[in-house]
Amino acid sequence: VAEPLRKTTEIEVRYAETDQMGIVHHSVYVVWFEVARAALSRETGHSYAEIEGLGYYLVVTGARIRYLRGARYGECVAVTAWLDRVGSRGLTFAYEVRRGAETLATGTTEHVWVDKSTRQPCRLPRELCDRFRRIGGLAD
Amino acid sequence: VAEPLRKTTEIEVRYAETDQMGIVHHSVYVVWFEVARAALSRETGHSYAEIEGLGYYLVVTGARIRYLRGARYGECVAVTAWLDRVGSRGLTFAYEVRRGAETLATGTTEHVWVDKSTRQPCRLPRELCDRFRRIGGLAD
Amino acid sequence: VAEPLRKTTEIEVRYAETDQMGIVHHSVYVVWFEVARAALSRETGHSYAEIEGLGYYLVVTGARIRYLRGARYGECVAVTAWLDRVGSRGLTFAYEVRRGAETLATGTTEHVWVDKSTRQPCRLPRELCDRFRRIGGLAD
Amino acid sequence: VAEPLRKTTEIEVRYAETDQMGIVHHSVYVVWFEVARAALSRETGHSYAEIEGLGYYLVVTGARIRYLRGARYGECVAVTAWLDRVGSRGLTFAYEVRRGAETLATGTTEHVWVDKSTRQPCRLPRELCDRFRRIGGLAD
Repeated sequence: VAEPLRKTTEIEVRYAETDQMGIVHHSVYVVWFEVARAALSRETGHSYAEIEGLGYYLVVTGARIRYLRGARYGECVAVTAWLDRVGSRGLTFAYEVRRGAETLATGTTEHVWVDKSTRQPCRLPRELCDRFRRIGGLAD
Repeated sequence: VAEPLRKTTEIEVRYAETDQMGIVHHSVYVVWFEVARAALSRETGHSYAEIEGLGYYLVVTGARIRYLRGARYGECVAVTAWLDRVGSRGLTFAYEVRRGAETLATGTTEHVWVDKSTRQPCRLPRELCDRFRRIGGLAD
Repeated sequence: VAEPLRKTTEIEVRYAETDQMGIVHHSVYVVWFEVARAALSRETGHSYAEIEGLGYYLVVTGARIRYLRGARYGECVAVTAWLDRVGSRGLTFAYEVRRGAETLATGTTEHVWVDKSTRQPCRLPRELCDRFRRIGGLAD
Repeated sequence: VAEPLRKTTEIEVRYAETDQMGIVHHSVYVVWFEVARAALSRETGHSYAEIEGLGYYLVVTGARIRYLRGARYGECVAVTAWLDRVGSRGLTFAYEVRRGAETLATGTTEHVWVDKSTRQPCRLPRELCDRFRRIGGLAD
């Protein structure tokens, strides 16, 4: 079995992302996950913006985050995303946020595909689904 | 000439709104202005959500903010909004953010009405426009 | 055994909290949890701002969220928080976000107490810890 | 007279930055200005994080933004920042947000230097001030 594609995005901490503890607010990691998820999804050959244009929303149904160390302003973090599960109706992404060799946070997000016009859960067209299977390391 | 209606909204500072300076990040005041603007607009008899439902967006074309003192976590601020200008094609709102007797910030935002379907600037229907004129302190 | 105190905070959805799907962005629920957690913590007799003033940070070490239905602009949601676990070194909070009778999301957050000056995990003073035990429904 | 240094930062629009109008929420531009301001300030030889480490906050005292066209998810914007005014006690930055050849927004922010320990307005040390004068296009 092939390994899922791991895509790393470098993100510079924004001042606005810090809180009065002097570290990045914990809600921001969910936004960083989304940035990394979009970069990984682009590896299908379609950006997430294009997929929405085709009529599909990738709705978030669950999220888990484990916070190990706080990121700070002035730092650049590396957010790696990969597919943990690829189904015809949804996906699970996994993430790791690192600062150099240190892991700052890990997490997963669960998603279902929703038809933009009906707002109901749906299956992706086979061809598009296969592209996600491929970056997920699954045979066609 | 009548005075414009001044509507005050109490907002409790959220931890996530602070930054590492230990005060509320300056971008947040723009969000607070929006909350106060929505509360004032509701005085027309239509919430802003309803006005969007009728087919109009109130697009922001300009904003000015003067920051005098920083709000802090644990505080409740009072954000007062009123109409500074009411035209058939747009509005200007003015704001004051206070903590007790102290003014923390002042500002204005300029807006134009945009037709949701064409995404082009438009005029509001007379009846709706008159409602904004009334809370703006203008004769019909 | 007593039940933990359940504290509900009403939150009006902010326009800035929506995304282009037309619903509240999933990262916002973590911020709402924090608002509800602060309201519950105040039931100890000390606001969270005061507890920081005493020298303790309540650092987030984990979060889980299950999203069932999206909140929308124009709606008011009720966020209920309660203590799921009270230890001398940390707390686990649980949350439910409702719109009328519908549950929109549920979640938990895990926390450890950190000494503000040393930035190391610590125990809360007994008296303060007991106050959290009491709102957590635990005998002294 | 030399021209002020113009520093451009590329920013990819984040999904979380959009609102239900389908464009980037207007409060986000203030955050983008901050990102571009930090990149420009780094041209002094000191990152803004280092300057805070030296004991100075660059507090925002005013902001003006003019919004011409909305940025959208899937786009990359170029945010250019330059110094409009350099004083011993404060700075004014100017900004332009572009998408290709189109200008999406322009703005300015005004700042004063504040001593981190006293929280009072202050002057920057001569050497540091000169570095800002240089990137501002002013003779020493």
